[in-house]
Amino acid sequence: MSAKTDVEPFYLPIGDEIEVFTAAYKSRLPVLLKGPTGCGKTRFIEHMAWRLFPDLQVSHSNLQSLITVSCHEDLTATDLVGRYLLDQDSTFWQDGPLTRAVRSGAICYLDEIVEARKDTTVLIHSLTDHRRLLPIDKTGEVLQAHESFLLVISYNPGYQSILKDLKPSTRQRFVSLVFDYPPPEQEALIIERECGVDGSNAQRLATLGQKVRNLRDHGFEEGVSTRLLIYAGELIDNGIAARTAIEYAIVQSLTDDPEVKEALNSIADIVFP
Amino acid sequence: MSAKTDVEPFYLPIGDEIEVFTAAYKSRLPVLLKGPTGCGKTRFIEHMAWRLFPDLQVSHSNLQSLITVSCHEDLTATDLVGRYLLDQDSTFWQDGPLTRAVRSGAICYLDEIVEARKDTTVLIHSLTDHRRLLPIDKTGEVLQAHESFLLVISYNPGYQSILKDLKPSTRQRFVSLVFDYPPPEQEALIIERECGVDGSNAQRLATLGQKVRNLRDHGFEEGVSTRLLIYAGELIDNGIAARTAIEYAIVQSLTDDPEVKEALNSIADIVFP
Amino acid sequence: MSAKTDVEPFYLPIGDEIEVFTAAYKSRLPVLLKGPTGCGKTRFIEHMAWRLFPDLQVSHSNLQSLITVSCHEDLTATDLVGRYLLDQDSTFWQDGPLTRAVRSGAICYLDEIVEARKDTTVLIHSLTDHRRLLPIDKTGEVLQAHESFLLVISYNPGYQSILKDLKPSTRQRFVSLVFDYPPPEQEALIIERECGVDGSNAQRLATLGQKVRNLRDHGFEEGVSTRLLIYAGELIDNGIAARTAIEYAIVQSLTDDPEVKEALNSIADIVFP
Amino acid sequence: MSAKTDVEPFYLPIGDEIEVFTAAYKSRLPVLLKGPTGCGKTRFIEHMAWRLFPDLQVSHSNLQSLITVSCHEDLTATDLVGRYLLDQDSTFWQDGPLTRAVRSGAICYLDEIVEARKDTTVLIHSLTDHRRLLPIDKTGEVLQAHESFLLVISYNPGYQSILKDLKPSTRQRFVSLVFDYPPPEQEALIIERECGVDGSNAQRLATLGQKVRNLRDHGFEEGVSTRLLIYAGELIDNGIAARTAIEYAIVQSLTDDPEVKEALNSIADIVFP
Amino acid sequence: MSAKTDVEPFYLPIGDEIEVFTAAYKSRLPVLLKGPTGCGKTRFIEHMAWRLFPDLQVSHSNLQSLITVSCHEDLTATDLVGRYLLDQDSTFWQDGPLTRAVRSGAICYLDEIVEARKDTTVLIHSLTDHRRLLPIDKTGEVLQAHESFLLVISYNPGYQSILKDLKPSTRQRFVSLVFDYPPPEQEALIIERECGVDGSNAQRLATLGQKVRNLRDHGFEEGVSTRLLIYAGELIDNGIAARTAIEYAIVQSLTDDPEVKEALNSIADIVFP
Amino acid sequence: MSAKTDVEPFYLPIGDEIEVFTAAYKSRLPVLLKGPTGCGKTRFIEHMAWRLFPDLQVSHSNLQSLITVSCHEDLTATDLVGRYLLDQDSTFWQDGPLTRAVRSGAICYLDEIVEARKDTTVLIHSLTDHRRLLPIDKTGEVLQAHESFLLVISYNPGYQSILKDLKPSTRQRFVSLVFDYPPPEQEALIIERECGVDGSNAQRLATLGQKVRNLRDHGFEEGVSTRLLIYAGELIDNGIAARTAIEYAIVQSLTDDPEVKEALNSIADIVFP
Repeated sequence: MSAKTDVEPFYLPIGDEIEVFTAAYKSRLPVLLKGPTGCGKTRFIEHMAWRLFPDLQVSHSNLQSLITVSCHEDLTATDLVGRYLLDQDSTFWQDGPLTRAVRSGAICYLDEIVEARKDTTVLIHSLTDHRRLLPIDKTGEVLQAHESFLLVISYNPGYQSILKDLKPSTRQRFVSLVFDYPPPEQEALIIERECGVDGSNAQRLATLGQKVRNLRDHGFEEGVSTRLLIYAGELIDNGIAARTAIEYAIVQSLTDDPEVKEALNSIADIVFP
Repeated sequence: MSAKTDVEPFYLPIGDEIEVFTAAYKSRLPVLLKGPTGCGKTRFIEHMAWRLFPDLQVSHSNLQSLITVSCHEDLTATDLVGRYLLDQDSTFWQDGPLTRAVRSGAICYLDEIVEARKDTTVLIHSLTDHRRLLPIDKTGEVLQAHESFLLVISYNPGYQSILKDLKPSTRQRFVSLVFDYPPPEQEALIIERECGVDGSNAQRLATLGQKVRNLRDHGFEEGVSTRLLIYAGELIDNGIAARTAIEYAIVQSLTDDPEVKEALNSIADIVFP
Repeated sequence: MSAKTDVEPFYLPIGDEIEVFTAAYKSRLPVLLKGPTGCGKTRFIEHMAWRLFPDLQVSHSNLQSLITVSCHEDLTATDLVGRYLLDQDSTFWQDGPLTRAVRSGAICYLDEIVEARKDTTVLIHSLTDHRRLLPIDKTGEVLQAHESFLLVISYNPGYQSILKDLKPSTRQRFVSLVFDYPPPEQEALIIERECGVDGSNAQRLATLGQKVRNLRDHGFEEGVSTRLLIYAGELIDNGIAARTAIEYAIVQSLTDDPEVKEALNSIADIVFP
Repeated sequence: MSAKTDVEPFYLPIGDEIEVFTAAYKSRLPVLLKGPTGCGKTRFIEHMAWRLFPDLQVSHSNLQSLITVSCHEDLTATDLVGRYLLDQDSTFWQDGPLTRAVRSGAICYLDEIVEARKDTTVLIHSLTDHRRLLPIDKTGEVLQAHESFLLVISYNPGYQSILKDLKPSTRQRFVSLVFDYPPPEQEALIIERECGVDGSNAQRLATLGQKVRNLRDHGFEEGVSTRLLIYAGELIDNGIAARTAIEYAIVQSLTDDPEVKEALNSIADIVFP
Repeated sequence: MSAKTDVEPFYLPIGDEIEVFTAAYKSRLPVLLKGPTGCGKTRFIEHMAWRLFPDLQVSHSNLQSLITVSCHEDLTATDLVGRYLLDQDSTFWQDGPLTRAVRSGAICYLDEIVEARKDTTVLIHSLTDHRRLLPIDKTGEVLQAHESFLLVISYNPGYQSILKDLKPSTRQRFVSLVFDYPPPEQEALIIERECGVDGSNAQRLATLGQKVRNLRDHGFEEGVSTRLLIYAGELIDNGIAARTAIEYAIVQSLTDDPEVKEALNSIADIVFP
Repeated sequence: MSAKTDVEPFYLPIGDEIEVFTAAYKSRLPVLLKGPTGCGKTRFIEHMAWRLFPDLQVSHSNLQSLITVSCHEDLTATDLVGRYLLDQDSTFWQDGPLTRAVRSGAICYLDEIVEARKDTTVLIHSLTDHRRLLPIDKTGEVLQAHESFLLVISYNPGYQSILKDLKPSTRQRFVSLVFDYPPPEQEALIIERECGVDGSNAQRLATLGQKVRNLRDHGFEEGVSTRLLIYAGELIDNGIAARTAIEYAIVQSLTDDPEVKEALNSIADIVFP
């Protein structure tokens, strides 16, 4: 494994997302990141956490200024806020990740918020308006957020059925930044940088990514993440033939449908003849 | 962040809501606040809590006379009333937010009551008639409410499917105040006051808000909250171009639908040419 | 707030309900109170509890002979019967409200029984036949009810979908008293007595109530409770104009539907021209 | 209240049910009682428990040889078998009602078995074949049933949707006795005996019961239980007019449907002119 | 009750099921028993447990080499594997029935496996392939099964909707033995042996059983178990008339449908004229 | 039972799966194994765990470098990560299987991942990207994975309804290897090696397997696992006739459908005439 840690998280800006996020942070306006699977939302927030708190970072993979929670349907308010645990002699209180962020002044990033249980969504209301308060029902405390604290959430608008679950009363509490996959020239740079593959293969993998995403207009919804393109590059770099690497890292990871596989392989035929 | 706390919560009355609330409070009649997302219900109840208990306030964001609970589908009667916790040697009882309000004589504001579990709704029945009692099943206590106590709830009648969940036997226990977005002149004043944007931009943002809400008659249900207009003002005040600020604070926060975005941008073209 | 407590709960009989309840109590036959929202069922049972146990009462709002439980979908048998709690050194048993009534010989009033969980409904079977027994599974006790004990339940037959939930095997264990809103002359007396409004306004509010209830034949199901008419009277008594009071206490509390509001306002136009 | 306790439970046999039950008990074959609401199944099993164990009874309402459990949808195997409770120093085991019956050799009567949770139904399998074993998973014990023990269950075949829930693998473990309402002459005797009403009114109430049950062929499914006829008799005996007693004890207890009420009142017109 | 215990469990083989089971056991291949309600699956496994472990048995009803679990929809992996219990000073671990069998080398028989919760089904995977391992998540142990251990499960293929719940990935781990009701000559022998009825009545009951099962081809799905035929024999042996015994032990136990009852009675008319 | 343990797990490679897995492991790319029931996925991962960590193995059935979890619908994040247990004096933390693998650097194999609860799926996100972190919410720890750690998951794409549950945001985090049943010559070698059956029968069983799988094109979806072919071989080796062995080990284990059984027997007629 290459030694990529302990440097600034690499992020290639596509538009004015860094400026707008910085402006929103200046007024402590909560931010929503919208965009498809694997287009760079997590990397962006890591980059911003590094950039806004330059003195605070230990390593790329352990940012002191960023507390990330991957939301899921069993995630409760208790998981976020904290709970009482039983010790040798008594119970003691343990902060959850949101409470830690509120106290310490970190960015709290709730990834795929719509997947969480509803009490989670409501919990953030008083943190996202002028009050900036976190009520902790179980202890009776009402925390005033640290002045550096910011709440950031993400969701994928491509999942239509889930979209409707983010209630307008929640959604209208955020500035909303939109993300999409990078253009091919930039994506080639990212692929080359993230794995050891040469520039020519990186360029071809980026072209492949763009052509696969164009299938979205023909009913293949998902697109391919930059991550999978990098996986293919890693396998190539480890000595696997390019077309084999594409088969296992991209085609089989995207679909089980024989017709879609055929379409993906036709694209690969063109890009990697 | 500007130092807006520790002063009376700013509220610009639209109609006779302050007089009617004061009269209802005089007879301790419970009050229901009806209205759309972000139209000022929370600010109104903060204002009334400050106004009715002038001697009691610590700061705007920490009103001693107001205990707010954001309701959600996992909120139980136990969360509101209290629970036994385990200490070093024994269990002890901890009041929930409703019990604290009942004992101390605060206003208890249950925001979006219809989202809470049904046992919550029933719990308030004996507090909202001539008895003004809160039975605490777990301790066997029956609390007579403090003479200053009042119960206030809110809900959004625009969510049709939820509306039917507020049973008539609950609903007919409240005086009902109706709220809507402020007229543009007043909203411009609010925007200017809440963020540092100049009067001209504030006026244009208010006009934008009004025009977006008029889309409701054309099938766009949600409207835009005053909060989002203020967000756009904050971004402008922090140096972001007006149209960029509107794109991220308003358009992208309101919708993911390309056609609705186009309609919103056409409105922005007119107001911010 | 007026000093209305510590006197006999005011109840104006409409038919022979007092005589039949007294006869049923003489044979300890369980009683079911049927009727719409806010027509006086709760007040009636308070009145009977006062009347049948004249020596036992502390105050109107704290009747020693009546234990009321508002049922809801999370109410379990354990909530009614009791539970073990953990003390410093051991667990101890705490009676629930039904067990307290069974031991002390009070009337136990289960309001809106059909809302409770099914185990609750079954629990009362052995209390409502010749056995008059309450088995407490958790302690292994089988309580013989105190000779004064009586079980009374209520439900609202207007909620059709709920009605079918009261199983015949439960329903056929009760004598069933039917309640409806009082005729206007009586309702005017009640309004005048309960709030400080003058006789003329009380009469007009009662007329308004009657006319609103007649809309039931035109598809407006709910009727208006006597309570809301009293609320309007309270607001008038506190200096709010009559039509404003009616708007907030009655019209907005009854509906969100613009057409129904218009119909209600037309009625108000006639009664309060 | 009349002193009817401490004597043999009154039961008037309709067919050969006493002989067949006695024969089944001789071989310890489990028995299923089928029949509509309030037709006498509970009274029959009380009578048999008294009859088969004449030396064991304390009182009619507290039969040592009979342990009755009213089943409901929250009833679990743990409720029937027992659970660990926490005492001052340790946990201790407490038998549930089924385990008490298995150990002591009583009849265990599971009323409306199909309402219970499925684990309850399966639990009884090893008690109803040649093994006569009750495995107690939580303690690791396997109890051999006392030689006097018998399992008896009941259900109401009129509830069609529930019927299918009694799986054939359960049902084919029982001898099945069928019950129905008694013929009018016998029912008149029962009514006269159970309440103080005179023979003429008892006869007329029994006739009323028969006619109401004939409505079953015209779409009124439920029939009227003997219990409600006795309630009407009790009210008459306490001085309420016969037609008023019938209205409250029978008509209103059977239905909320105006047309069915009218049909029932027409029958009452004929029987109590 | 007759003294039938402490002898080898009686089982009359129909085909080569004993040989195949013995061969499967020799290679420790897990076995699935398929067949309708009450056709002898439980008795067969008792017989095999006795036969394969002749030195280990205490009594017929308490086989040391066989641990039976009747599965139901609330049965969890924890119920099968074991749990921590709280003792005076600490928690201690208690094996569940599956773990006891794995440790001691007994046959574990999971009756009606498809009724259990899915985690139960998955739990047995590592016990049914070459690994023969039982992982105990809660203690961190991974048990290697005793060399005598075997897992046996059963299900009833007649319950079509349930059938599909036994996933192929589970099902393809078992050798599958098929069972059906015995032919009439053999069933007569079983009936005569199990109850005291004479050979002529036993023969007629077996004939009745065969004719009832033939109704399966005419839409009566369930068949009649050998057990119910024995019940009828027991009642006859205890002095009940044959047709009465058949009515209560067979007809009423099989159905509530009047037409099916009539068909069953017509068959009884022929066999017991 | 034959002494097959303590040697390298036998695996016959079909394509380039060993090379691609080795290359993916070199870059620590997570791997997804796709394929039908019983085609060798589990054996492959056992083989790779042995091959990549040759010095670490105790025995074939107890691989130190491989921690396998069979997923099911009740499997929670807590089951994977760990939980607090109560000891004599205090609580202590116990790692779950995923945490043990993350700490010790083993391969963690989550078999049939789509069956697990959603929180499980989300939990693995931060372990499958550049961070390689496992957050343990309950202790507040964030574990950096051991450098040898790798996450491997499997699923069966033939279960269409389940497929859609593996969200693209999860799926696009894995290199995907595809498995299918081995060709007949190779499968015959496997059968002969795994049980004592002779080469001729092994060849015929493999041919039978191939022909049964061809039925998939005619609507019989499941195919037959290599395991069942080996079972048949074991029974033959234990003296059961070949056709009898096929009936019980293959035909009855595959289906309850008479028509499918007939088709399977026709195939057996050809292969074992």
